[in-house]
Amino acid sequence: MKPKDTIIALATASGVGAIAIIRLSGKKAISLVDAQFKSVSKKRLKDQSSHTIQLGHIIDGKKELDEVLVSVFKAPNSYTGEDVIEISCHGSPYIQQEIIQLFLRKGCRIANPGEFTLRAFLSGKLDLSQAEAVADLIASDSEASHQIAMQQMRGGFSNEIKMLREELMNFASLIELELDFAEEDVEFANRRKFQDLIQRITNVLKRLIDSFAIGNVIKNGIPIAIIGEPNVGKSTLLNVLLNEEKAIVSEIAGTTRDAIEDEMTIGGINFRFIDTAGIRDTQDIVESIGIKKTFEKIEQAQVVVMLIDAKVLVAEVDKAKNEIAQIQNKHPLKPLIVIANKVDTVAKNALSDLETQISNLLLLSAKTGEGIDGLKSKLLEFVNTGALRNNDTIITNSRHYDALLKALEEIHKVQEGLDANLSGDLLAIDIRQALYHFGEITGEITSDDLLGNIFANFCIGK
Amino acid sequence: MKPKDTIIALATASGVGAIAIIRLSGKKAISLVDAQFKSVSKKRLKDQSSHTIQLGHIIDGKKELDEVLVSVFKAPNSYTGEDVIEISCHGSPYIQQEIIQLFLRKGCRIANPGEFTLRAFLSGKLDLSQAEAVADLIASDSEASHQIAMQQMRGGFSNEIKMLREELMNFASLIELELDFAEEDVEFANRRKFQDLIQRITNVLKRLIDSFAIGNVIKNGIPIAIIGEPNVGKSTLLNVLLNEEKAIVSEIAGTTRDAIEDEMTIGGINFRFIDTAGIRDTQDIVESIGIKKTFEKIEQAQVVVMLIDAKVLVAEVDKAKNEIAQIQNKHPLKPLIVIANKVDTVAKNALSDLETQISNLLLLSAKTGEGIDGLKSKLLEFVNTGALRNNDTIITNSRHYDALLKALEEIHKVQEGLDANLSGDLLAIDIRQALYHFGEITGEITSDDLLGNIFANFCIGK
Repeated sequence: MKPKDTIIALATASGVGAIAIIRLSGKKAISLVDAQFKSVSKKRLKDQSSHTIQLGHIIDGKKELDEVLVSVFKAPNSYTGEDVIEISCHGSPYIQQEIIQLFLRKGCRIANPGEFTLRAFLSGKLDLSQAEAVADLIASDSEASHQIAMQQMRGGFSNEIKMLREELMNFASLIELELDFAEEDVEFANRRKFQDLIQRITNVLKRLIDSFAIGNVIKNGIPIAIIGEPNVGKSTLLNVLLNEEKAIVSEIAGTTRDAIEDEMTIGGINFRFIDTAGIRDTQDIVESIGIKKTFEKIEQAQVVVMLIDAKVLVAEVDKAKNEIAQIQNKHPLKPLIVIANKVDTVAKNALSDLETQISNLLLLSAKTGEGIDGLKSKLLEFVNTGALRNNDTIITNSRHYDALLKALEEIHKVQEGLDANLSGDLLAIDIRQALYHFGEITGEITSDDLLGNIFANFCIGK
Repeated sequence: MKPKDTIIALATASGVGAIAIIRLSGKKAISLVDAQFKSVSKKRLKDQSSHTIQLGHIIDGKKELDEVLVSVFKAPNSYTGEDVIEISCHGSPYIQQEIIQLFLRKGCRIANPGEFTLRAFLSGKLDLSQAEAVADLIASDSEASHQIAMQQMRGGFSNEIKMLREELMNFASLIELELDFAEEDVEFANRRKFQDLIQRITNVLKRLIDSFAIGNVIKNGIPIAIIGEPNVGKSTLLNVLLNEEKAIVSEIAGTTRDAIEDEMTIGGINFRFIDTAGIRDTQDIVESIGIKKTFEKIEQAQVVVMLIDAKVLVAEVDKAKNEIAQIQNKHPLKPLIVIANKVDTVAKNALSDLETQISNLLLLSAKTGEGIDGLKSKLLEFVNTGALRNNDTIITNSRHYDALLKALEEIHKVQEGLDANLSGDLLAIDIRQALYHFGEITGEITSDDLLGNIFANFCIGK
């Protein structure tokens, strides 16, 4: 399974930058670069220590391609576990291409997506769930998704799984040993302790499986349906929320973010705002296609935010109460936040009157900023950030989720078998199945297909 | 003039990549990173040797921001001549921002465009023309522009200027010394040798000034007006030329180039093809606006390529000859290439008949590829690649061109002064002026405005 060829790829983002990094990994990485590198120190790369940087020129025959810094990482102390060379060249796409083409001619192969990380996995530098976390880390775009990926990359999740797997494996061995002495009716595996272990495993699996709900939401963002008439101040509100984040980001020139108006990060969590038509005209509710669509979108959302002009609300409070009731009847379990916007245009006593009539009303002015912080913390209440804060393991990967579900199923069978005082040989089959699913997560059990699927989603150069 | 603060910027292209490099330079670069870096080796960065790489984590309070490699470059052995730290982090824009923001909070400042290179210039690591070559190198998109930038960055051009400047300065000193002994009528500066030097300087300046024509063309591409009816096979021809280049490029996944149909590199030189309408209807030449535009575009072009369908050419050879004459009359000095396209559709003897009637006719079939190589070498004939091949210094920068022109003007005045046996004090004034312009090129003479203008065109992070 150990790869024999030497791979190369641009490791930094494509396009023009001050510098670019070209990475080589494999048996010949050092010798191939040595042959094309004129070091200022005159020393050859193979004679340099690992983790050192040399200044010099990449040469192609008589032509100097670029002045570069070459970093040497010697096996096994590198990302891939193989010899690795990183060439830091000037960031012109022309130069990047010329250098990569030079090494392709000299015997390198362009790396497949994720192939550097695949090699790290194959040489045991990372387990499979850690390797998957590398891709998650690169894709992370909020504090929460970043934090979960970091934790997974550090091995928090896979260590938990590995430890359970090991304990379970020990019991499996003992039970299988009993089979060899079947006629003597000995019991090597203490059934009470085994019962305890199965209970512990069940608890851990349930906790991990439950965490997928929050993990998935963190990875993909929380969908919020926002209901409101066109002139109610919806986009002003979204811009106020977005701009507070953007202000930080745009300080750093060169990293300005595209304004995706309906997606934003609040308190480290991504929210996706789904714009919907209002349901003002209560007479036509069932008939109107627009209102049908609004209800469909509410269906997809995790939270509903209803935005009403405070003035309109004062004038027609019964109509609003009717609408709120409509939504609550249709979606009794869906959390609903009712916001009176433009409160700066309405008298204070009118507002306190409203608050007694509509429970949990949020008073807000997108214009003055009043109530914005209240809205933010209300939105964050719907995310179970407890797990995040406690640094508990959170599952974000549906492959892991599936494997955990299957493992739990097998553990249930083992539990049933124990309850029914099943014979050791039958127990062992279910235990082996559970072990198989644990192994799938961390990569002890793997197949070319599985690896292919996982690493195909990586970017080239990682 | 020495900068006191520590700057930071993303040094690699923005966007998602496998890795990204964040660069810090300045007095506090090492101590600032040391405070936020948990090294695996437990050793502090300040205790590490220059040009070494450490694995560890960037920490923000209790939070681990990322697992990174940190490269240490200690002053003066760094790009800027100051202490430099390069942080190689995971290539997620979120992580890049978080790390940059962390160091902004800790006292770094976001680097201005080109500020790292400006600091390299200020600490004497590069002269000004070398610093300018760094930007040219990053912008280079063809073999020729890359080669010229490399040569300039190595200091080929500025060394030539510096040597002349030094010799001239010696003579200036001797002549000024004579002034101190004016009453004794001594001659420290040998006038014959000075005459020789002025002649040598004049020759070098003229050669450099002349090279700007080719340098400019290489930097900006050679404009080629391409004349032809819509169905004559123009785009097929351009695609054939373009695809041969693209085939090499697209081998390297992730670096696919946008198909800019009217711009391409042939033999390392950039060509810009300017599409024009034909001038078929000879009756209406002067009146037609389209044809007037064609002539305007011919005006801007360095070479004109006229594409005619071989079949049409056979049928109406006199009409074609008339058109060729029109262009040649209007633009007598503009090189013209006449191409009979689709020669695969015409009988051989008809073609040889055409060749006798139209001089320098190029027979071509964009479809079969016949004649493509001939066209390429014909196009390259119009570029004076001699200078390129001989590795002569080529000026591409209009700032240098202006300074050289002004220096030549002053040198002429010195020459005239010598011829007129002018007194030393008057000669000295013109020599000082010439020296000033030499110094402008290499940066011995500089101003904040000049530096501001030059480095504003750099990218951030360089």
